Amino acid sequence: MSDDAPESLIPYDEIVQDALRAVVGRVLGEVEQSGGLPGEHHFYITFNTRFAGVSIPKHLSERFPDEMTIVIQHRFWDLKVEDEGFTVGLSFGGVPATLRVPFAAVTQFHDPAVEFALTFQANAAEASPEEHEVAENDAPENDDGEKREDGSNVVSVDFTRKK
Amino acid sequence: MSDDAPESLIPYDEIVQDALRAVVGRVLGEVEQSGGLPGEHHFYITFNTRFAGVSIPKHLSERFPDEMTIVIQHRFWDLKVEDEGFTVGLSFGGVPATLRVPFAAVTQFHDPAVEFALTFQANAAEASPEEHEVAENDAPENDDGEKREDGSNVVSVDFTRKK
Repeated sequence: MSDDAPESLIPYDEIVQDALRAVVGRVLGEVEQSGGLPGEHHFYITFNTRFAGVSIPKHLSERFPDEMTIVIQHRFWDLKVEDEGFTVGLSFGGVPATLRVPFAAVTQFHDPAVEFALTFQANAAEASPEEHEVAENDAPENDDGEKREDGSNVVSVDFTRKK
Repeated sequence: MSDDAPESLIPYDEIVQDALRAVVGRVLGEVEQSGGLPGEHHFYITFNTRFAGVSIPKHLSERFPDEMTIVIQHRFWDLKVEDEGFTVGLSFGGVPATLRVPFAAVTQFHDPAVEFALTFQANAAEASPEEHEVAENDAPENDDGEKREDGSNVVSVDFTRKK
């Protein structure tokens, strides 16, 4: 066994990422079932807006042509979790909208309350989407926003090959 | 948000570990379906021998009262993967045996061919099982054994709370 790991014939990257996407569904499913967020928990969910199956209003897809981040915290409604994705009602600038997001489109999940984060590569997404602002669907003023890099509970799935 | 992360009301540790256990099932399932290991891939699987649902011969449970590691490489047969665990035929010192291992009993999964490893805490297991030798079910002489700590593709799920 040399230090140059051979190309894997088993797609571990993909298998692990697929498995971890189930975390997003399970966490949202528990919120759906219990009817609310426990304690101070809240979620920043970033997804690829061009991914097949994503359904968002046109003004959002125009503003966020690559990725957008939504906040599940103060005002959200009709959260429904299915096998392949979730739908949720959110308000953007006072305008209500229903968003449908397949789990396969999710690139980041972040719960600032306990600094838990998951980072994915969106399936079939381009490698480096540009930086984007959070969609500001009613995040409070004093929220400390995106602190993923400081988190103690960050799971980043990145099995970079050595060659 | 202080540096002292509060106790999580969402059991992320458990949810992530449960999700990652699906990786073991999916990888073994692909081996079952294709009828063999691809390329140089092979697996060291460590499990808690006292976990409910584990079924191994008495001489093995006596020799490995806490944990044992099996090798899925040269000689194995009747690999069957189910929703909750797997069964496999292995030879120990020339004596064939059928082992049944629930995925929830697995504490480590390691593929030395690409240095991919997953480490779990067994559900309801004691915190620190003692060191144990590999069960030597026909691992070849020149195998370099357990190199988990050197791996480049190690996923260790350990969300230690800050307080």
